Amino acid sequence: MHYADLLIHSARMMATLKGHSDSPAVGEKMSEIGLIENGAVAIREGKIIAVGTTEEVRKACLGPETKEISAEGKVVTPGFVDPHTHVLYGGSRENELSLKLKGVPYLDILKQGGGILSTVRSTKQASDEEIKTQTNRRLRTMLSFGTTTAEVKSGYGLTVEEELRALRLIHELDKEQAVDLVPTFMGAHAVPAGYSEEEFTDYVIDEMLPKAAAEGLAEFCDVFCEPGVFSLESSERILVKAQQLNLKLKMHADELESAGGAELAAKLGVVSADHLLKVSEAGIAALAQKGVIAALLPATSFNLAKNSYAPAREMVRAGVPIALATDSNPGSSPTESMPLVLTIACLYLRLTPEEALAGATINAAHAIGRADQVGSLEVGKKGDVLILDIPNLNYLPYHFGNNPVEKVIKGGKLVWEAQA
Amino acid sequence: MHYADLLIHSARMMATLKGHSDSPAVGEKMSEIGLIENGAVAIREGKIIAVGTTEEVRKACLGPETKEISAEGKVVTPGFVDPHTHVLYGGSRENELSLKLKGVPYLDILKQGGGILSTVRSTKQASDEEIKTQTNRRLRTMLSFGTTTAEVKSGYGLTVEEELRALRLIHELDKEQAVDLVPTFMGAHAVPAGYSEEEFTDYVIDEMLPKAAAEGLAEFCDVFCEPGVFSLESSERILVKAQQLNLKLKMHADELESAGGAELAAKLGVVSADHLLKVSEAGIAALAQKGVIAALLPATSFNLAKNSYAPAREMVRAGVPIALATDSNPGSSPTESMPLVLTIACLYLRLTPEEALAGATINAAHAIGRADQVGSLEVGKKGDVLILDIPNLNYLPYHFGNNPVEKVIKGGKLVWEAQA
Ligand SMILES: [Zn+2]
Ligand SMILES: [Zn+2]
Repeated sequence: MHYADLLIHSARMMATLKGHSDSPAVGEKMSEIGLIENGAVAIREGKIIAVGTTEEVRKACLGPETKEISAEGKVVTPGFVDPHTHVLYGGSRENELSLKLKGVPYLDILKQGGGILSTVRSTKQASDEEIKTQTNRRLRTMLSFGTTTAEVKSGYGLTVEEELRALRLIHELDKEQAVDLVPTFMGAHAVPAGYSEEEFTDYVIDEMLPKAAAEGLAEFCDVFCEPGVFSLESSERILVKAQQLNLKLKMHADELESAGGAELAAKLGVVSADHLLKVSEAGIAALAQKGVIAALLPATSFNLAKNSYAPAREMVRAGVPIALATDSNPGSSPTESMPLVLTIACLYLRLTPEEALAGATINAAHAIGRADQVGSLEVGKKGDVLILDIPNLNYLPYHFGNNPVEKVIKGGKLVWEAQA
Repeated sequence: MHYADLLIHSARMMATLKGHSDSPAVGEKMSEIGLIENGAVAIREGKIIAVGTTEEVRKACLGPETKEISAEGKVVTPGFVDPHTHVLYGGSRENELSLKLKGVPYLDILKQGGGILSTVRSTKQASDEEIKTQTNRRLRTMLSFGTTTAEVKSGYGLTVEEELRALRLIHELDKEQAVDLVPTFMGAHAVPAGYSEEEFTDYVIDEMLPKAAAEGLAEFCDVFCEPGVFSLESSERILVKAQQLNLKLKMHADELESAGGAELAAKLGVVSADHLLKVSEAGIAALAQKGVIAALLPATSFNLAKNSYAPAREMVRAGVPIALATDSNPGSSPTESMPLVLTIACLYLRLTPEEALAGATINAAHAIGRADQVGSLEVGKKGDVLILDIPNLNYLPYHFGNNPVEKVIKGGKLVWEAQA
């Protein structure tokens, strides 16, 4: 055993989330978060080399050069993984707030050229540098709230050139700042003016997908499957093509209507089906049977203020693995805070703090194909660790609206720290 | 005109909230927030000496020793006033959230010693220093979220000695940290074991109130008026006695049931009636007629997750002045964030960003008898100013879950600043 570069010790409570790296935690397993009292984790060359009690870990790998950080009285967890974001864009849409306050439906805003298409315009108008500066700032905020890995979707381009630009910018940002980014191609995010749904679906399949795949720019392909946006048929055509091009699959499913989205997700064996506010009983059963992860986005429900939330407890009961994400985007969820997502998940999805934590770490890592690298504190994984300034895990959803994160360690390096 | 000690200039948008200091803003006046583009405010010896455009204010009072802070591209507002908190206590109740999520009925939680009486016990067990350390930390978080003045209630004592101790600690904390505190006596917060409601009401009236008043420890008296807690009759007896002792009045009214709380509040002419989720139409009319301020606590509604919010739009329409508060407390609202309260107020009370800002500043100042000193940027008031790192006011409720505050200036001094 080599000595550690960094040793975090004396955690009052350390949630390792161990034992779920081969397959996502489901049902009662979502409550098994691998707690260690007086816990410690050791990191060398960016990776975890030991996890256990403070005594065990110190004995195994405390060397003369090892830097130590005390987490006494505090909670230590893996870095949060945010498996569904649209965080790359130019502009903002606070002007739509008044429309929303007046009750204008989202799809109507979309039809009026607002909504997603407004961000498509402001993103196109922004230079690469402008987009990166704005996105960097959001990523920095995400990091401050404990997110160390995030999925980021394209989808504010809607032309071959703009979608590829977005994916390239995601790659550049991945290298230039601390949060690890997983790129998803989502050309089928909205139907732009001048196209029928079918024409745009053809364009996505014939023009966008082959180029995105050829350049190796995306790991996943996602589709906004929803009546009035992309139908089940169009969604299936796009996702089948993406699969042929060796992309992994995701779906925005059953957000606004119960329309068989989850059933299609299960049929195609997508990695995650997301939103699912209106998922049917049959859809839940299908997701469970195929092991499709339900990535739930309760901050979006909160922000849309329709008192409509995904039936998370039914899904847990049925054995669907749950992941949690911010859905960070300029329209329906302008937030970067995973801690607030955890609070809303507990209060409104009725997840327990343990289930919510599993959803925000190891299951989220599975949802973006990174469970071999992040999402738990286990030997061989990246040294992505949070020190939370709270006395126990219940405190994480309980104390809300603030930032419980005291330190963010990414690959063994301290990358963010709260003010004293 | 003397030179300024501090001059904040170049605000893209400065909301002065001017013109509402004599009486709270009501109806359409709640949208008149006194915007100045390229705004500036000058402070000398802790007080505002000039407000206007950057050019005007610089011409009037920029001297050789004046310190300048640029708010270029940003929004400047008065410091937030939080007019309803129970932020002084020992202990915390995160265990109750976990029980609730695991399906334990509320009555069972109470039988296990939960609820307000649990905080009464943990507060009694805590030393003065422990309570102050814990409360100081919460006040520091409040300050970081822009709160420069806050009301704080006693009410976790429920004996003469403990209630007086709480009020004394509020006074000490007021002197020892940056947030200005306004003390409210709330001995009638819950009925402790061993008393009937009537007996405890007598105890409050005969023992607690005279001593609290004699020591000059409280400015307001508040009562938890609610069927099953303190009846209309008990509440009236307590408040009438408080009035005789020259305390100003507040009421927790119509939170859980529509039971005439607002009507009593109007009859007694209290300064503010708070919560009001179940206020009747007649109650709204009575509040409007008497100019009673409705202090609304939407973070509590959010946290209780019952989709039950005060009918704020009806109140605005009827001419009831609205104030907003966190209700910061260890049970129903463990938060310190006025920005999150503003977001919830817009999304769920359907207030506009302008109305919400008026509710969090000048109307909140009226609700705690401080409108002559704080709540707006006007000459002669305290130099309590926020620089918000947002491009316009809509952005304040829009971008949620984070902290928009860049700098907090209290009495002309920079007391909190965000990380770069
Ligand atoms: Zn999405
Ligand atoms: Zn209260």
